[in-house]
Amino acid sequence: MNLPIIRYVLGYVLKIQALFLLLPCITAFIYQEQEGFFYLATALLCVVIGHLMSFKKPQQQVFYLKEGCVATALSWIILSISGGLPFWLSGEIPLFTDAMFETVSGFTTTGASILNDVEIISKSSLLWRSFTNWIGGMGVLVFLLTIIPLSGGSHMNLMRAESPGPSVGKLVPKIKSTARILYLIYLGLTFLEFILLVAGGMPVFDAIAASFSTAGTGGFGIKNSSMGDYSPYLQWVVTIFMLLFGVNFNAYYLILFHNVKKALHMEEVRWYFSIVGISILIIFFNLLQTVSSAFEALTQSAFQVASIITTTGFSTVDFSQWAESSKVILVLLMFIGGCAGSTSGGIKVSRLVILFKTVVKELNSYIHPKSIVKLKMDGKQVEHEVVRSVNVYFITFMIIFVFSVLLVSLEGADLITSFTAVAATLNNVGPGLELVGPTQNFGHFTLFTKWVLIFDMLAGRLELFPLLILFHSSVWKDSFHSGWRSKKAK
Amino acid sequence: MNLPIIRYVLGYVLKIQALFLLLPCITAFIYQEQEGFFYLATALLCVVIGHLMSFKKPQQQVFYLKEGCVATALSWIILSISGGLPFWLSGEIPLFTDAMFETVSGFTTTGASILNDVEIISKSSLLWRSFTNWIGGMGVLVFLLTIIPLSGGSHMNLMRAESPGPSVGKLVPKIKSTARILYLIYLGLTFLEFILLVAGGMPVFDAIAASFSTAGTGGFGIKNSSMGDYSPYLQWVVTIFMLLFGVNFNAYYLILFHNVKKALHMEEVRWYFSIVGISILIIFFNLLQTVSSAFEALTQSAFQVASIITTTGFSTVDFSQWAESSKVILVLLMFIGGCAGSTSGGIKVSRLVILFKTVVKELNSYIHPKSIVKLKMDGKQVEHEVVRSVNVYFITFMIIFVFSVLLVSLEGADLITSFTAVAATLNNVGPGLELVGPTQNFGHFTLFTKWVLIFDMLAGRLELFPLLILFHSSVWKDSFHSGWRSKKAK
Repeated sequence: MNLPIIRYVLGYVLKIQALFLLLPCITAFIYQEQEGFFYLATALLCVVIGHLMSFKKPQQQVFYLKEGCVATALSWIILSISGGLPFWLSGEIPLFTDAMFETVSGFTTTGASILNDVEIISKSSLLWRSFTNWIGGMGVLVFLLTIIPLSGGSHMNLMRAESPGPSVGKLVPKIKSTARILYLIYLGLTFLEFILLVAGGMPVFDAIAASFSTAGTGGFGIKNSSMGDYSPYLQWVVTIFMLLFGVNFNAYYLILFHNVKKALHMEEVRWYFSIVGISILIIFFNLLQTVSSAFEALTQSAFQVASIITTTGFSTVDFSQWAESSKVILVLLMFIGGCAGSTSGGIKVSRLVILFKTVVKELNSYIHPKSIVKLKMDGKQVEHEVVRSVNVYFITFMIIFVFSVLLVSLEGADLITSFTAVAATLNNVGPGLELVGPTQNFGHFTLFTKWVLIFDMLAGRLELFPLLILFHSSVWKDSFHSGWRSKKAK
Repeated sequence: MNLPIIRYVLGYVLKIQALFLLLPCITAFIYQEQEGFFYLATALLCVVIGHLMSFKKPQQQVFYLKEGCVATALSWIILSISGGLPFWLSGEIPLFTDAMFETVSGFTTTGASILNDVEIISKSSLLWRSFTNWIGGMGVLVFLLTIIPLSGGSHMNLMRAESPGPSVGKLVPKIKSTARILYLIYLGLTFLEFILLVAGGMPVFDAIAASFSTAGTGGFGIKNSSMGDYSPYLQWVVTIFMLLFGVNFNAYYLILFHNVKKALHMEEVRWYFSIVGISILIIFFNLLQTVSSAFEALTQSAFQVASIITTTGFSTVDFSQWAESSKVILVLLMFIGGCAGSTSGGIKVSRLVILFKTVVKELNSYIHPKSIVKLKMDGKQVEHEVVRSVNVYFITFMIIFVFSVLLVSLEGADLITSFTAVAATLNNVGPGLELVGPTQNFGHFTLFTKWVLIFDMLAGRLELFPLLILFHSSVWKDSFHSGWRSKKAK
């Protein structure tokens, strides 16, 4: 394995992290908070270490899929460690594990918190939490691709390792331009939400934090009631933007640069909105029996469906108290997640569509054993390799899910808590049900459970394999072996 | 589709059913129960209809996979309808849906009951319930293969559609002999259990019923306490036989006709006993904290682990009250199930081993993209087609599971009840947790939910596709089309 290139990429990641950390520094300066000191110190530390790591340019700049995965996984780990330091150093989150949990939850856009009371946290830390949601939404390495001076055409392996969905395509021939277009759409939508929130009377600080957390589909709130205390108008703005950030960004690219019709015909997007529509409808009818007005029922059901399917995790009400069939739908939506190529988590709609079509194809093969019908999506044939990798992804996902539930259940919490705690973290949602419901938090778990869930959050965001590879012995054996060989060759 | 051959097979199935129904008739005669009349009437009905259906031998005797699946699915449906008639006609189970539920539960070796009090049921009906477990365990069509006068070498498609597991192999070149050997092993083991139970002081009637239900891994009990009131010796005999009936029958064939060493080296069997051992151990330690003696803890944990992993479903205690981690293990065991080629349900150990190896293979491909390592089992390469069909099976299983939970949750029962009710029926286990726990039953569900669960039981026993195919429009369209064409050709 090409260790020098990984060192080089990680160095750059740390330098970018320093840049990111300036935002809480500025916030602390504005609000005169002493927590700013710890953000500044961490930023300086990141610059120094980052510079030392990326000082010497590696001779070999070719990146294989293996290097792409390892670089991505390690990047997210060092982002989380450096990003969590200020929480821990300032004493706002006294336990190191808790600080890690909160930061991993932020960067992976999960939004699960260990904090009992977020309103006593400093404004700089609150904004930093929401900002980690925003950074994690689009991914750091995609950002890196737009600025890093790397030669060679193998950047795709970095992007593939970090981007969600079964198949990562380039929008335009140059991958650098693809990344830039994606970031511009992301920035534009975030800004639009901010404007609409401020126009509806939300305080500027709240609007910045809410826009960040919505865009990344993270869902860190700055109030203990999450979004419950805001006006219906503000809730609807957030609902609509959550749904928009759950759409495949290719659709926006098509709308902006090609034609709207093509975007509207994207099969995944149609499935996504169909699932959203049906879910809202069922929950709406369930709510009608308990809520005073139809408008309130619609507001609540639309907000919660949007929040859960996009794996944002904001809440306006305690849906732990809803009818059982509403809760089953919400739990299913956690697993479904948004579209591929969006900022949301979960298994992703396009994967599920491919899985569903695999089953239909199998049934057909029982009836017409000799006919060879290819699986199609958007009218085009889906490559066999993509279908295969989607199947394997699903299997791996279920295995990790089951083992995690087993480990978490050792705590002794009830089955629904264990089940939904894992569902909410592995799918990067945030809240679950019962002891991890929307009015609760993850602080009461043991250290062991918290580390299991930290692993799940990272595995979910990085789509399993890039993280799992770190635990494969031959990655490290190979590297030392090849390092030794190259020295010998000299 | 070749409809005449399906009619012919179904006719034979009905005639065999008439034969099966003689057992409760004899029981009624011995115990002087008037319910015997209804069993006799049903048996006569089956003979007449069966004879009419199988009177004319079809010209075309070739069987494709499609015909195999449809014949199998329809056989199980008519077995259930005819087998449930006496319950309904005699008034012992007044509701038709309930009578169907009970019989499907019996034949599919699920063992889930709608009866509140089994001890008021007539002895003939109790024995019939247990006997359906025994019949369903090995499968009716496999039995048919040993006696039906069909020419042509395509019987395999019948056996493949009915037998559990990813790949059905013949033990000996002739499929008829394979089926005979399997039935002899089945009969021998059942008889051995009966002898050991009677030797331990169990009444003969109880021992016959218990042996039938254990052998089929069905789990219908004849007491309200299931196996709770029997002595530890009897519970251990049942424990050991449940485990034995969960083993791949190929292992017994190897032990009897080849060498024991080869049987002990079967990978699936080793995994099976490892999972059993680890589960017993964990639950044993959990139980030590609440139960008075270590022996009692071991007896309880071994019995329940054996009962659930083999999907038998007997119980000696109310495991709904156990520690959460014990319950999570039991729920996982429901899904794992026994070995392929055994009488148990669930996903099957060999499928899970293949799934697990698929994931490891995928991880390796990230590290060495160019190496082509084949997936192996028992030292032999697993065919690509088998791996693919296992993957598709798992995906289909999860889709059916999720939709069923959604439909059952419309009842309004709690999440754990809905989840485990589907898990217990789709995996052919029997009891679940909460409202479908070992001390409860399935009688309280609405008619709609009962039909969903009846579908799940059949889908689970027939391993999904043979049942799903019945709902594929082109099966029926094709048949009428080809019927019309063949007439035209004349």
